[in-house]
Amino acid sequence: MMKDAASMPLAEGIASKDVRIHSRFWSRYAELVKDTVIPYQYEAIHDRIPEAEKSYAIQNFRIAAGLEPGEFNGMVFQDSDVAKWLEAVGYCLQTQPDEELERLADEVIEIVAAAQQPDGYLNTYFTIKAPDKRWTNLAECHELYCAGHMIEAAVAYYEATGKRKLLDVMCRFADYIDSVFGREPGKIRGYDGHQEIELALMKLYRATGEKRYFRLSRYFIDERGQAPNYLTEEWEQRGRQTFFPDMKDFGGDYAQAHEPVRQQREATGHAVRAVYMYTAMADIAGESGDAGLMEACKRLWDNLTGKRMYITGAIGSQAFGERFSFDYDLPGDLAYAETCASIGLIFFAERMLRLEQDSKYADVLERALYNTVLAGMSLDGKAFFYVNPLEVVPEACEHHNKQHVKPTRQGWFGCACCPPNVARLLASLGKYMYSVRERTAYIHLYMGSESTLNVDGRRVRLMQETDFPHASDGIIRVYPESGEAVLAIALRQPDWCPALQVRINGEPVSTDGLSDKGYIVLERAWGAGDEIELTLEMPIIRMQANPLVRETIGKVALQRGPFVYCVEEADNGNRLHELQLPASAALQEEHRSGLLGGITVIQGTAERTAEDGWAGRLYRPAEKEGTASQDVTFIPYYAWANRECGEMSVWVRQS
Amino acid sequence: MMKDAASMPLAEGIASKDVRIHSRFWSRYAELVKDTVIPYQYEAIHDRIPEAEKSYAIQNFRIAAGLEPGEFNGMVFQDSDVAKWLEAVGYCLQTQPDEELERLADEVIEIVAAAQQPDGYLNTYFTIKAPDKRWTNLAECHELYCAGHMIEAAVAYYEATGKRKLLDVMCRFADYIDSVFGREPGKIRGYDGHQEIELALMKLYRATGEKRYFRLSRYFIDERGQAPNYLTEEWEQRGRQTFFPDMKDFGGDYAQAHEPVRQQREATGHAVRAVYMYTAMADIAGESGDAGLMEACKRLWDNLTGKRMYITGAIGSQAFGERFSFDYDLPGDLAYAETCASIGLIFFAERMLRLEQDSKYADVLERALYNTVLAGMSLDGKAFFYVNPLEVVPEACEHHNKQHVKPTRQGWFGCACCPPNVARLLASLGKYMYSVRERTAYIHLYMGSESTLNVDGRRVRLMQETDFPHASDGIIRVYPESGEAVLAIALRQPDWCPALQVRINGEPVSTDGLSDKGYIVLERAWGAGDEIELTLEMPIIRMQANPLVRETIGKVALQRGPFVYCVEEADNGNRLHELQLPASAALQEEHRSGLLGGITVIQGTAERTAEDGWAGRLYRPAEKEGTASQDVTFIPYYAWANRECGEMSVWVRQS
Repeated sequence: MMKDAASMPLAEGIASKDVRIHSRFWSRYAELVKDTVIPYQYEAIHDRIPEAEKSYAIQNFRIAAGLEPGEFNGMVFQDSDVAKWLEAVGYCLQTQPDEELERLADEVIEIVAAAQQPDGYLNTYFTIKAPDKRWTNLAECHELYCAGHMIEAAVAYYEATGKRKLLDVMCRFADYIDSVFGREPGKIRGYDGHQEIELALMKLYRATGEKRYFRLSRYFIDERGQAPNYLTEEWEQRGRQTFFPDMKDFGGDYAQAHEPVRQQREATGHAVRAVYMYTAMADIAGESGDAGLMEACKRLWDNLTGKRMYITGAIGSQAFGERFSFDYDLPGDLAYAETCASIGLIFFAERMLRLEQDSKYADVLERALYNTVLAGMSLDGKAFFYVNPLEVVPEACEHHNKQHVKPTRQGWFGCACCPPNVARLLASLGKYMYSVRERTAYIHLYMGSESTLNVDGRRVRLMQETDFPHASDGIIRVYPESGEAVLAIALRQPDWCPALQVRINGEPVSTDGLSDKGYIVLERAWGAGDEIELTLEMPIIRMQANPLVRETIGKVALQRGPFVYCVEEADNGNRLHELQLPASAALQEEHRSGLLGGITVIQGTAERTAEDGWAGRLYRPAEKEGTASQDVTFIPYYAWANRECGEMSVWVRQS
Repeated sequence: MMKDAASMPLAEGIASKDVRIHSRFWSRYAELVKDTVIPYQYEAIHDRIPEAEKSYAIQNFRIAAGLEPGEFNGMVFQDSDVAKWLEAVGYCLQTQPDEELERLADEVIEIVAAAQQPDGYLNTYFTIKAPDKRWTNLAECHELYCAGHMIEAAVAYYEATGKRKLLDVMCRFADYIDSVFGREPGKIRGYDGHQEIELALMKLYRATGEKRYFRLSRYFIDERGQAPNYLTEEWEQRGRQTFFPDMKDFGGDYAQAHEPVRQQREATGHAVRAVYMYTAMADIAGESGDAGLMEACKRLWDNLTGKRMYITGAIGSQAFGERFSFDYDLPGDLAYAETCASIGLIFFAERMLRLEQDSKYADVLERALYNTVLAGMSLDGKAFFYVNPLEVVPEACEHHNKQHVKPTRQGWFGCACCPPNVARLLASLGKYMYSVRERTAYIHLYMGSESTLNVDGRRVRLMQETDFPHASDGIIRVYPESGEAVLAIALRQPDWCPALQVRINGEPVSTDGLSDKGYIVLERAWGAGDEIELTLEMPIIRMQANPLVRETIGKVALQRGPFVYCVEEADNGNRLHELQLPASAALQEEHRSGLLGGITVIQGTAERTAEDGWAGRLYRPAEKEGTASQDVTFIPYYAWANRECGEMSVWVRQS
């Protein structure tokens, strides 16, 4: 691994293939992804689902490969659906080998490979439809974006199976891209409108050891936003032709190309592009020790998570341009809050955890994962939210330019980015659990699992025995390869956990003085089978938002453990805005194994504003309004919209 | 005056020429309209305002008249801008003769008349651009709408000057329309997509006594929404061609053509179209004694004002389609609340007051007038709001599909319906002050004025000496033409007035038993110079909205007299959402003659949520938030956005 600058203590990530998750909570999702989502998406990209919009994704590859005649169909970035499916398959196969699934993937890879052009180029839209227009509309046409997704797929599949076919295809394409883009004379001094290639090239660099992929990635990041602005100039050169009729922002902050990335201070523009870019920036910063880039990442992180993130870990508050809006502007009902953006936030957090072992990154990672990402998929794995509002009144979604907000999950989207993105994240969860820096193994996420880590050159097996998040205690067993090893196990104290207790081999351990940036660092000579017994307090917490957030002032949201809660019409009736939760109301948790796949609900007594006494009037001189007590039930946000369509709200007025 | 059915006690309206307003508050507006708005609009329709978008309105008439070559420009309904200007001029001349203005109007009328086609047809778009396409797209192309506005102008100008030129032109056009539309074989069995002709024909009928204009108006109302749906069939016959690319709703509730008007129960669709139609329905119902139509009007009134009206008298809560949304859906920040819609609501209220003398109609009329309509224009008469939000954070208007909401008034719109609509309303205010039923004169609006009414066949002069709305007392002097007359003067007790005192010729009068539907009816033999001294209590009132309104729950708005108040950043700093008004806070009024043209402000002490203690955090476990006392100043809503651009809110949280 290369270090350009003075080496800094950089943590290593962990490959998902080195983790076996056997968590009651998460295994259900792993099975859903493997048994429902991946097969469904396979059918979808093959246009075999009668009730869904046709995808054409495989058909496009077949046409580009000359395997059948026809025209290109679908979005200009349709290729990426095949890539995300392959990537998810790769992650699944890393932990759960499956010959039949591998055979299907190999078939798809054959078709993809056959669509590659003699010079290495691979993109079905341009190959079929506009072969002379390659690289003429980077701003809108997603060529490098699609390349990036297929590179990610190639790496995942190679790591799962050892098969190089797709990896070689994508190395050839990456080599070709490297020959086309750069600062050297004769090359295009451009970059993609939708970032993705940058983080993918970092993966390709790690998988192959080829330094030029790292340099190409760094080139794309460094060049972005430099003057003169490439995306603006490209648009001028096209005679100001646009691919998408509404597209107006060339070279602006929509694609984070308004200024060089090191100067950027606020999370702006299209949210998914932003976090994919930040992910690559953090990755490159860690790899190169580039302090300026690292500072930019930290600044952007602080702005993003400190001023522009919903309590559910959702980001990108406005539908218009799927964009960030401005500091503290977090409307719950108009939210865009795209599932893919929270997935990108998780990528960013994971890279930041390699740069700096501070639990604030893992706290956000966990928040986005357990709330927005899980909410993005129905409990049966068959329907998806693209947009994840924090407040829904179904009738209002049909009005007021809120049409982007759906009160029920949809089967498959014309722009189908979110479902395969959820699948690939859930299939690779193991990657996000740990990082290792020198001789410290950091545990970021708690879930029943067995993992093998490389710590300071030694293999160490860590077994987590826990029913988290259903329970908040567990045992972590340590098995150094060599029988005994001096190393540190750093236990994350989550932001929702006010106190924890630790025992090692049954003996209580005082954690005083052991805390470092949110981790309890337990350093000692660990022997085989040593066990850490960890008990996290997991109280019900009323959360409030910074008063600068207009939409939530005077309101509270409930949290317990990693879960943000909400009230739903199915439990509490409609007109949820009439509910007020007294600050003094006692709140009880109750596990209901039969409800929504098994959830812990929170119950209390709220006050509901009385509707009587109005006699048909709309306005009247203010009186003390009557209220009636009402039992109120909160459910974890991720489980909403799995019953009949109705109102939902995360924030509730506090009285 | 014709009565088709058994006569009902129908009130007569009053012509604005019979009223001279000499109110301190209103005279300023009359002068603004005459000295600023009408001259500005004259220049605008003549394309002589360099900084404004070109109107082309007069140029189109000149081209259609063959006076110059060229192409049609502007909106398809651009003719109506000339009509509304002429109508406003007509009202001005009714009370303030002005030779020069009349000369300018006569010149415009010459051009308009010259554009009339030999068969009577008059519409510059179709004459210039598509002479063979007349009446082929009633749904979108506003031919009858433009005709209606020019008819209103013709009547107003005729009543002002006695000049018949434009009236004759429009009678010829109306006769031609009558020959084209109707149920008889060979006629088009259609109606306009944008209602307006119906109410205009009623005015033409009254001005000329020609019964066929009444019948034609009633035909348009009766035919609307019948099956098969004309607008849908027309669209099919055009091969589903649309004039406006986004137009989708042919024959639906957008244009209130989804069902026959007598069956309609909810105020739906495009708000301006709706209230223009309801106005004509009420007018026709009164004229014909049609009980079914009257019931429909009452039902629609109740739904509109009881479930779908902002506290400012604004209507049409969503930008999408400039439409009503659904019951109790009244978001303050996303509001459409078009100025023109509130003007139409005033028309509707005035017609309802002829049908039924219930102060609820006048209460709404006054609410819309003193709040939304006045807010529609800047204090200098040079800038206008199309959209009248109840809550504005300027930065948020640039995001979230709130682009329809402007934090500052604009000079002149491409679709310039609102400015001339405000002008014509303010120039004809006298019409809305009274109605007369048999021997009762109803006073709906209080303003310093001298009027002549026909009561039970006798002329009666009423002089209001009052500084209302600056003061809430006044003297009404009665001068029957014949020296003494037995008649009733009915004084409206406004909804904002909890109690009033009456003296007649200095003697206190008990009003017990004299109240009838919100009016104090004083019946007696009135002699010349008899005076009614009226004192209305005008307290500061905290108003609350029905709890079914989601956006305003837990909040209050202040009212005093006819004015709804708001907080503005200029007085109270930004982040207005942090303010809470304690239920117990004392509120004082204070007149400030130097502020915003002279307003009475309301002052009190509010609590502002403290921003400190957050240390950059976005969320935290709920604590009792600190608050700091802050003097808070409320100003009348109509006066907002006349200082620097900033936040504004009508509703404030109550603690």
